[in-house]
Amino acid sequence: MERIQATYLIETPYKVEQAAAVLAGEQSSGTFVSVPGETDELKTRFAARVEAIEVLGEVSAPSMPGEIIDNKTYTQAKVTVSWSVENFGYNIPTLISTLQGNLYELRQFTGLKLDDFELPESYKNHFKGPNFGMKGTKELASVGLERPMIGTIIKPSVGLTPEYTANLVKTLAEAGIDFVKDDELLASSGNSPFAVRVEQIMKVINDFADKTGKKIMYAFNITGDLDTMKTNYDTVVKAGGTCAMMSINSIGWAGVKQVCDFGELSIHGHRNGWGMLNRHPLLGINFPAYNKIWRLAGVDQMHVNGIKNKFWESDDAVVRSIKSCHTPFLNNESVIPVVSSGQWGGQAFETYKRTQTTNLLYMAGGGIMAHPSGPAGGVRALHQAWDSAVKGMTLEETAKQYKEFGESVVKFG
Amino acid sequence: MERIQATYLIETPYKVEQAAAVLAGEQSSGTFVSVPGETDELKTRFAARVEAIEVLGEVSAPSMPGEIIDNKTYTQAKVTVSWSVENFGYNIPTLISTLQGNLYELRQFTGLKLDDFELPESYKNHFKGPNFGMKGTKELASVGLERPMIGTIIKPSVGLTPEYTANLVKTLAEAGIDFVKDDELLASSGNSPFAVRVEQIMKVINDFADKTGKKIMYAFNITGDLDTMKTNYDTVVKAGGTCAMMSINSIGWAGVKQVCDFGELSIHGHRNGWGMLNRHPLLGINFPAYNKIWRLAGVDQMHVNGIKNKFWESDDAVVRSIKSCHTPFLNNESVIPVVSSGQWGGQAFETYKRTQTTNLLYMAGGGIMAHPSGPAGGVRALHQAWDSAVKGMTLEETAKQYKEFGESVVKFG
Repeated sequence: MERIQATYLIETPYKVEQAAAVLAGEQSSGTFVSVPGETDELKTRFAARVEAIEVLGEVSAPSMPGEIIDNKTYTQAKVTVSWSVENFGYNIPTLISTLQGNLYELRQFTGLKLDDFELPESYKNHFKGPNFGMKGTKELASVGLERPMIGTIIKPSVGLTPEYTANLVKTLAEAGIDFVKDDELLASSGNSPFAVRVEQIMKVINDFADKTGKKIMYAFNITGDLDTMKTNYDTVVKAGGTCAMMSINSIGWAGVKQVCDFGELSIHGHRNGWGMLNRHPLLGINFPAYNKIWRLAGVDQMHVNGIKNKFWESDDAVVRSIKSCHTPFLNNESVIPVVSSGQWGGQAFETYKRTQTTNLLYMAGGGIMAHPSGPAGGVRALHQAWDSAVKGMTLEETAKQYKEFGESVVKFG
Repeated sequence: MERIQATYLIETPYKVEQAAAVLAGEQSSGTFVSVPGETDELKTRFAARVEAIEVLGEVSAPSMPGEIIDNKTYTQAKVTVSWSVENFGYNIPTLISTLQGNLYELRQFTGLKLDDFELPESYKNHFKGPNFGMKGTKELASVGLERPMIGTIIKPSVGLTPEYTANLVKTLAEAGIDFVKDDELLASSGNSPFAVRVEQIMKVINDFADKTGKKIMYAFNITGDLDTMKTNYDTVVKAGGTCAMMSINSIGWAGVKQVCDFGELSIHGHRNGWGMLNRHPLLGINFPAYNKIWRLAGVDQMHVNGIKNKFWESDDAVVRSIKSCHTPFLNNESVIPVVSSGQWGGQAFETYKRTQTTNLLYMAGGGIMAHPSGPAGGVRALHQAWDSAVKGMTLEETAKQYKEFGESVVKFG
């Protein structure tokens, strides 16, 4: 019988073998004493199995509250556990409850983080993956593989009228933007009702497409309960839009899956709340596992933060996330990594150097909107930065050669 | 205009006022520089406002990775922030993204935990709350207000056949159980397909109800994608069941809301994964806020761990959670707290002493199943414990007076 395998980073005051056995027990048998009915045959068929243990080191203080044992050190290790597909079949919420359920509550651990997991071949028959993925999303936005999609976020997040926003989109379109998105804080607000915003913005985008043949991708934030999302989704489709944005953690897996299955729009997966799930080095979930869960739902675009971002996430973590998006998974080659947070073009050089890819959606919010030559200057500066980075030029050379990028360096550098 | 208020526990190396302003800014304006279009009128209408700051103390080391400033101490504080209802209306996923979105990513904090939030009156017009709540759920299970519902979890979690499980339910029903549930790891497994399990178990429960007038509540784990949940829900309704269980974190808010809205079954909210969201003292979310989010979806029964549980959660946190379930919220008086984890009846005395309530669903898994006189003895022991605790007897007195509870003390005490 096929098995599912998961890797955890753990910390424990106990012997690692003993702690790993507790983890496997809790996540398959699930009680603190032996009970009748738990035969050896059942155990063999349904019990989780510890497949590998790699000790990483010892620390003298626990990373989190847990069992405190006097005069003990705490061992950090990488542990691989497996379950039979029979335990849950192709039920992803139950898979999630198995991979990251009650095990975080176990006293035996002073640290526990799900790092990655592997699914067997048969999952390919049950999950088609994203409808558009990296390639399909770039095609929808008329962007080739030779450069990243350049995008921006409408700021301030909440408060602008649909008219103001639509005018801004017009300016950005004329300056060569590929992608614009609502902020995650804006769904339908007092002065920007969803349907009105879609109407006004899509008029600008459709007019521009009629003139130039290029349809800007706008990620309308359809986040809400399922009825709201269905209505908003249909509004976008009817208006000729190509993308919908969802706050995936706030909506949850079942809701996101349902909307992805509609199949007509590229889905922009916004992972706000990520810090809560990932920020502690030994609690929660790492991006490779997180990303797979959402690829199973069908998300096409996935946030990864950016190099030298304004948040806490390290450059190494960002690079790992980008690579994770570009690693084939089940039926799907790649989702497009959404690079953002404090980006202004200056980070294009390091981003390209470390990832050697242009298959990104590269977004700057303030970096475009607050550019000294206005939003149009901001967009030009980003194109200049990426073209130069791909050619192997340095930031300094690019600043000298291009006026708008030079202005960015003065303001944001 | 009405405002929504949220309270956070924070830790920061900066001045608390400055850090709180960054939080409010990120969660309403949302960029790292001032941008055109952000007028004073817009700011007044849509900006988040810091309402109160209470400094709690100073620590010399940060609780989490974040901005590290040499020779600095880190201030811990309670901060209250408010938003206008206009920002998101009655869109709960967007409310979640506002209350617990990107703010966890801010470098300015070395700790940040959402503690509680308050919604204005107008929310009563948009959310009816749980369909059954505490009272309705107890009524469905024919249990009065004078004692807790006594429940158990089928263990081992995965592996038993529907026949074996149904026989176990028969034994438990005859012993006086009120409530039985699937484990969260079991939805539909290789040897226990969902529909077969429902059929076999409901036959036992319906037969017992025909004979005695008492219908045992069984929480069938319907967790899955939306289509699966709809099918499973209908299967339970058609078989005459009264309850469905959902792994709420794994399904997510939109999916849970949709299922609660079906309105025919009491919804058992299983919060597996809670440790990931709450275990660190200064990261994530505390129960009062968490509980309100799920009451808005319509969950009737909410897990709270138990006194002296097998997990890491403190007794104080458990008591606070029980009280939170019993605090009226919007149109709803109370959801029923599900007390579990390493319970065997011995904790009934402390639980009653500290909460003075019998409006609980009190569950023991191993504590019932592994009882020396079998599951029937385990159920009797739990009833003995609770009857005695409410009468003011001590554990020792109860152990002397009742055979089955005495056996529990020898085995589990």
